[in-house]
Amino acid sequence: MIGWKYGDLLDLSDLTREDIERVIETAKAFKEVSTRDIKKVPALRGKTVVMLFAEPSTRTRISFELAAKRLSADTLNVTVSTSSAQKGETLLDMAKNIEAMNVDMIIVRHKSAGVAHVLARALKPGVINAGDGCRAHPTQALLDMFTIQERLGRIEGLNVAIIGDVLHSRVARSNINGLVKMGAHVTLCAPTTLMPPGIEKQGVAITHKLDDVLPRADVLMFLRLQKERQEEKYLPSIREYVQHFGLTTEKLKNAKKDVLVMHPGPVNRGVELSAEVADGINSVILEQVTNGVAVRMAILYLLFGKKEKVS
Amino acid sequence: MIGWKYGDLLDLSDLTREDIERVIETAKAFKEVSTRDIKKVPALRGKTVVMLFAEPSTRTRISFELAAKRLSADTLNVTVSTSSAQKGETLLDMAKNIEAMNVDMIIVRHKSAGVAHVLARALKPGVINAGDGCRAHPTQALLDMFTIQERLGRIEGLNVAIIGDVLHSRVARSNINGLVKMGAHVTLCAPTTLMPPGIEKQGVAITHKLDDVLPRADVLMFLRLQKERQEEKYLPSIREYVQHFGLTTEKLKNAKKDVLVMHPGPVNRGVELSAEVADGINSVILEQVTNGVAVRMAILYLLFGKKEKVS
Amino acid sequence: MIGWKYGDLLDLSDLTREDIERVIETAKAFKEVSTRDIKKVPALRGKTVVMLFAEPSTRTRISFELAAKRLSADTLNVTVSTSSAQKGETLLDMAKNIEAMNVDMIIVRHKSAGVAHVLARALKPGVINAGDGCRAHPTQALLDMFTIQERLGRIEGLNVAIIGDVLHSRVARSNINGLVKMGAHVTLCAPTTLMPPGIEKQGVAITHKLDDVLPRADVLMFLRLQKERQEEKYLPSIREYVQHFGLTTEKLKNAKKDVLVMHPGPVNRGVELSAEVADGINSVILEQVTNGVAVRMAILYLLFGKKEKVS
Repeated sequence: MIGWKYGDLLDLSDLTREDIERVIETAKAFKEVSTRDIKKVPALRGKTVVMLFAEPSTRTRISFELAAKRLSADTLNVTVSTSSAQKGETLLDMAKNIEAMNVDMIIVRHKSAGVAHVLARALKPGVINAGDGCRAHPTQALLDMFTIQERLGRIEGLNVAIIGDVLHSRVARSNINGLVKMGAHVTLCAPTTLMPPGIEKQGVAITHKLDDVLPRADVLMFLRLQKERQEEKYLPSIREYVQHFGLTTEKLKNAKKDVLVMHPGPVNRGVELSAEVADGINSVILEQVTNGVAVRMAILYLLFGKKEKVS
Repeated sequence: MIGWKYGDLLDLSDLTREDIERVIETAKAFKEVSTRDIKKVPALRGKTVVMLFAEPSTRTRISFELAAKRLSADTLNVTVSTSSAQKGETLLDMAKNIEAMNVDMIIVRHKSAGVAHVLARALKPGVINAGDGCRAHPTQALLDMFTIQERLGRIEGLNVAIIGDVLHSRVARSNINGLVKMGAHVTLCAPTTLMPPGIEKQGVAITHKLDDVLPRADVLMFLRLQKERQEEKYLPSIREYVQHFGLTTEKLKNAKKDVLVMHPGPVNRGVELSAEVADGINSVILEQVTNGVAVRMAILYLLFGKKEKVS
Repeated sequence: MIGWKYGDLLDLSDLTREDIERVIETAKAFKEVSTRDIKKVPALRGKTVVMLFAEPSTRTRISFELAAKRLSADTLNVTVSTSSAQKGETLLDMAKNIEAMNVDMIIVRHKSAGVAHVLARALKPGVINAGDGCRAHPTQALLDMFTIQERLGRIEGLNVAIIGDVLHSRVARSNINGLVKMGAHVTLCAPTTLMPPGIEKQGVAITHKLDDVLPRADVLMFLRLQKERQEEKYLPSIREYVQHFGLTTEKLKNAKKDVLVMHPGPVNRGVELSAEVADGINSVILEQVTNGVAVRMAILYLLFGKKEKVS
């Protein structure tokens, strides 16, 4: 494959702007496959793709599994809860066993930051980071950027607001990384307690008021609120959070008419977004899900084209 | 496909007698496929079938999964216990996500009546009800009718007794619906506490004594007893239930020599049926399981032929 | 298939030396398949292979699943935790249901010795024992022997030490069975409490000191220690066990330079083997994993060639 250098996808900081454009272009072609009567191309026939998930995430898992199957790969699910993690085995030991079975690609989700990097350094098969702790979730950011590009025709120069629990969000971190690289103007909007200190060094503006971003934003990207944050004292109350950072039809009137409302899902209806907004005309949440399969097909296809390791 | 109008299968009340005959005929053809050396036909190649199970049921799940695989479809298992239901997501949200991934057919099992109907109304992909609460389990009734037709050559005019916990049984409800439509004479036999009030309006006779149905029945269809019913005060004791409604070799002597003994499984041996009867010459329980795959292949095949929604 | 008589694989005591040689030869051919760009042969297309696992074991399950998939079979996972075992169904009832669905091969793992034999006697599909209690784990022993043969060019006449909890080990029992038959000199090395009484009648030597076997062994086969054995009073302390039966780089100096260090995995690092030894130059632990897929492909292929039941 001309121009694709990587065998792993760990973090968007490893990709150039040209790489991201390449993913978006490739995803565009693969999106069409999922609308065909026979949703299958033979690209990865006879390859084995393992989903190694140590944290529950049905939607990300099935998005990758469908992407692999539509490329004709064999897929294998390994979840930690039903695995020999019960026998005290470490994830790396398990991954080395999977490698020894001549698996081609390992898609890993883990609650600890850096796990995907550890596996990529240690293993010959390609590794795709499907979310590691609060650190990175590169395919989510790629599908978000694909969605923005598809809907608005460009990313460069757009005003993108990322709203909510930035502190704990791997989705936010990967999107900041990608969007800044693509030339978007990114503003983070969060309560003080949920804003990572020093984050403005990454080329983003910060604010603590939704009103500051609403009128000018081309894209409003909401983050999922983990309700347990309240108990952890990050938040005085969910109600107060909703009042200041939740989007309702009323508040949406202050935004641009064709602003995109995005969310990585699952939405806490009535918290980040009112049900009306989540299902409303500005919402592209389900389009993000559709594009997720296409972007993951693109990533699998590109990584398989070039097996040189980045780590 | 000529003559098949439905894109969903939710309840047998949606089907005409001709529709049911069509399913039985189609299942007959597909039954042969599972006896071949290569048990696979290409009918659904490149289609995606999702098993969305929010209630454990290995046998129904694998029956559908095998049916889909033998038609060459790609299959995907989503169970609620390992899903983001843990994140508070509703089943409908999850289903809408699955839809957004361009899935073709969703097979749903849920403990609440009406869930399959809700999904069918909301979603573009076909929906098959694999059991919703106490309401309906249409593929079970279709496989039961296919088994009766295959064994006895007809359904019309047969005496069919449905015995046990009718009140809580979706299997009973779907069979009543189908069998009455096919012209069978249906008698329900249950303790007063487990007989739904007013059920006789559906064209069935009722009794509380097994002796009333034993001598004349062509088919004895037993229902699984949930043992927790006893604790819920529906039953004085399991022992008394067994004495009045359980079938033993001794009692079977009062039945027709070639009566069919049916059960949707899994049998509580020593409760609904003695082990001897469950494994005896009149039992067609495992034949029902074999026919289940054929009927589910037929349903998948027919629904894929016509994607118009019934709801 | 000329010369292969069995439709089940339950215990190595059913196989002759020639049979074992046949498996090793066949595995050698299949090992190459997993290194191809397209890791798939059409041998079992349209066949259905069920993994019926009533005890968690990710690595054995995925090894069999990959083996079946690389032979183009359809695979189906049935685990007891998510199955209708919750409804009180017995494993045999479940297996009879699976049989009724025209499945071709059932791979069974269970914590009770003899379960695979019970299923094989009762069922038409082939049965492969993937581990039954402390009794047998024939594919593990076959992959161990394949590894020895591949690395050392022969098995006959070699000195093989099996070290650790022999009493509770199905891996030990199957290896003793196979290795003695192949003409190896087998010595068991275990604390008195973990040595099965009377085991020397099977043609093996016994000792309680690692020093007795270290200098002469061509193969050091370690067994996994279940740490709960200590609480069950089989062991005074883990520390003492490690001191006497654990292998370290220091102790390894007393062994032959090219001795093979084997372990069925997962290794308790710092217990049976130090991390350095587990990852060291003598260790063939990951090679065993690689060979496991090849041996299981061979077994599936051979059993499918001859469906006559051994039981």
